[in-house]
Amino acid sequence: MITVALAKGALLKDSVERFAHAGLDFSAVLEEDNRQLMVPSACGSARALLVRNGDVPVYVAYGQAQLGIVGYDVLREHQMPVAQLLDLEFGGCRLALAVKENSGYKSAADLPPHCRVASKFTHCARAFFNNLDIPVELVHLTGSVELGPITGIAEAIVDLVATGRTLQENGLVAIEDLFQSTARLVGNPLSLRLDQGSLHTIVEAMRQPQSSK
Amino acid sequence: MITVALAKGALLKDSVERFAHAGLDFSAVLEEDNRQLMVPSACGSARALLVRNGDVPVYVAYGQAQLGIVGYDVLREHQMPVAQLLDLEFGGCRLALAVKENSGYKSAADLPPHCRVASKFTHCARAFFNNLDIPVELVHLTGSVELGPITGIAEAIVDLVATGRTLQENGLVAIEDLFQSTARLVGNPLSLRLDQGSLHTIVEAMRQPQSSK
Repeated sequence: MITVALAKGALLKDSVERFAHAGLDFSAVLEEDNRQLMVPSACGSARALLVRNGDVPVYVAYGQAQLGIVGYDVLREHQMPVAQLLDLEFGGCRLALAVKENSGYKSAADLPPHCRVASKFTHCARAFFNNLDIPVELVHLTGSVELGPITGIAEAIVDLVATGRTLQENGLVAIEDLFQSTARLVGNPLSLRLDQGSLHTIVEAMRQPQSSK
Repeated sequence: MITVALAKGALLKDSVERFAHAGLDFSAVLEEDNRQLMVPSACGSARALLVRNGDVPVYVAYGQAQLGIVGYDVLREHQMPVAQLLDLEFGGCRLALAVKENSGYKSAADLPPHCRVASKFTHCARAFFNNLDIPVELVHLTGSVELGPITGIAEAIVDLVATGRTLQENGLVAIEDLFQSTARLVGNPLSLRLDQGSLHTIVEAMRQPQSSK
């Protein structure tokens, strides 16, 4: 039985649609009254685990799911040993450095040395500032990072930006991008190596361009 | 201006009620259509930051909030430098070790050596197993930890238990408690030391037993 890990939230609808191209119908997870976290496919030959974003690579890395769909941002932050198989090109966003509109900072280099930067993505932020040799103090927050500059807990934030509306509503502006992110199909390396064709068939079916639907 | 950090979710209603005893009316945060994360008190002399559970001790430790209300479980897991002022005695739950009902394990010592244990509270779990000198591999999950034993990613879980319903629904049973948790009033140590009386007055008003309302 093939198990796939799907992330709850913004990526779910498109993830279900892409697996449908490979003949795996997990549309039951989209039903509003679904409370199950482990959902069989319509054909019964596979099942989906409905988990948080950050847990997708964990289930795939440990082999409890052979495949999973998760944002590149999560893969960069958590660095779990999973194979990246496909860029599915939905769920586009970017990880950006943002500051108060009226701060006058135009780039990371303008930030005062040893200032505080709040983020959910502290590993990515650490790597970014280390590469630039800019010393900052990172403050790990788990939500509503846009509150950081408003409350004064941080001079800047590193956060995901999709439409930019949250930044705008909070008087913030993005000044540098760390990287672009889209949804990725990932796989368990050992499962892929031992695969007798079934995983390969799914991956190939999902590789087809959208226009061939 | 006094700023207090309130945790979104299960503790919010009681937290607002307890601050009301001290004359700070934050009931606006309970309104269903409230989207603001920074909410002034009705009297205008204070404001509340509405943040995630785990971020309450961060805002208090950095002094962006002088006071906050958060579960003891979060304080134990995150170990931020905040002063614990009061046990507010609501939001009761326990951090427990749980296994599959049919596993036959009756205590932590029964677990197979080097088995995997899934938890959101990996620091607390690490300390617990270290104290017992039981070697386990901890798997950090960010949600739905009860899926752990069902999917086979872990033999056991360490998770918060309030009513026990989630465990029961998933065929799990708690076999040991790590500790009991309730909501705590916490304060920024420096703000408390420099306090000219206003914080002290609030803390004292919140200390009053519920019966004196």
